[in-house]
Amino acid sequence: MTDKTDTFTEQDQDSLYRIIQARRDMRHFVPDTHVPEDVLQRLLQAAHAAPSVGLMQPWRFIHIKNKTLRKSISQLVTTERLLTSEALDSRKDEFLRLKVEGIRDCAELMVVVQAPDDGTVFGRRTLAKEMPLCSTACAIQNLWLAARAENLGMGWVSFFDPNELGKLLHCPDDALPIALLCIGPVKEFYEEPMLQQEHWRQARPLSEFIFTDHWQEKHD
Amino acid sequence: MTDKTDTFTEQDQDSLYRIIQARRDMRHFVPDTHVPEDVLQRLLQAAHAAPSVGLMQPWRFIHIKNKTLRKSISQLVTTERLLTSEALDSRKDEFLRLKVEGIRDCAELMVVVQAPDDGTVFGRRTLAKEMPLCSTACAIQNLWLAARAENLGMGWVSFFDPNELGKLLHCPDDALPIALLCIGPVKEFYEEPMLQQEHWRQARPLSEFIFTDHWQEKHD
Repeated sequence: MTDKTDTFTEQDQDSLYRIIQARRDMRHFVPDTHVPEDVLQRLLQAAHAAPSVGLMQPWRFIHIKNKTLRKSISQLVTTERLLTSEALDSRKDEFLRLKVEGIRDCAELMVVVQAPDDGTVFGRRTLAKEMPLCSTACAIQNLWLAARAENLGMGWVSFFDPNELGKLLHCPDDALPIALLCIGPVKEFYEEPMLQQEHWRQARPLSEFIFTDHWQEKHD
Repeated sequence: MTDKTDTFTEQDQDSLYRIIQARRDMRHFVPDTHVPEDVLQRLLQAAHAAPSVGLMQPWRFIHIKNKTLRKSISQLVTTERLLTSEALDSRKDEFLRLKVEGIRDCAELMVVVQAPDDGTVFGRRTLAKEMPLCSTACAIQNLWLAARAENLGMGWVSFFDPNELGKLLHCPDDALPIALLCIGPVKEFYEEPMLQQEHWRQARPLSEFIFTDHWQEKHD
């Protein structure tokens, strides 16, 4: 049996499950706020405790403190939002009515960059690109849950050209910016995913996603 | 301000942070055990509460109940382990001494498969392959934390050829098996990442991974 110090109780489980269910991808933030340095450190420590394939720890965090730089990033996102609206064709106008990011308003902006390949073979010989990306995403999910537990909102913005963003932040060519994280106080959390709340898309129930022994999904 | 029902306390935060820090990639399991169906459902519900780009929900879970099928999967993993050992060259023998998976012993084996591309454009026009994979990884991280909170071990095994595994499970060609999840009771949790404990690799401190405004990592 596990020893007492690392055995979790029903109360711990209840806390975790409530945090997981209450986490939202936030786009609305309270402007002119900031996140205290000690809180930010706790969020990053949670991220850094993520699993990584072969102990690669491929995540890097760039905290954007320069206001002009934040504006330049916001412009990159605006450009991509418009390009996305064109690609969405018949749903263009509906898309443009959605708020998809809170980069200018959020207290803190953090860019997550996947580090250049360090040549790790362990656990990724057949999934070389996928596995470090999965590790980086796990770190972001830890950070997200930590932010929610600290009653802070977080939004993962992926509306950007990774090459342009990489250049702006002087990243090496083989590093991959994967997330713009908007973090900060919010007025309230969405009761359900915002895309569902705004009737953009309906989430499907878990029962449709669990199979036994082989793939069982029916195709439309 | 957020209303009382979704405001978390210091106790909730403490639970989450302890769970995050205690989570390990487990390879040693107690054989001849099983995970009750209600516990498994809670783990999957935690996974299903993950964020997903454009509300794609790209994760699918295949619960392996057939014993012959589990053996076939174990054989795929053994094959990949040997191919990896060859690729590791000078560290081959050292690698072969490591236990890298617990597929035969773990109580439950769950395969996570990324669903075929459903054509979603929202939030992934420039990161089409990366974003659904990140969503799937976030779901796995939720499941992992839930398992740890339930005092169960989990290991994410990525030693397999995704095409071979896909064929074995009758997955569509454009679905991508991304994880073999070994889940179940363990005798004890590793005090630190097993790869560190076994002197395979040393983790680097968070302080080396936080930059301000631009990439600041020194290259060796």
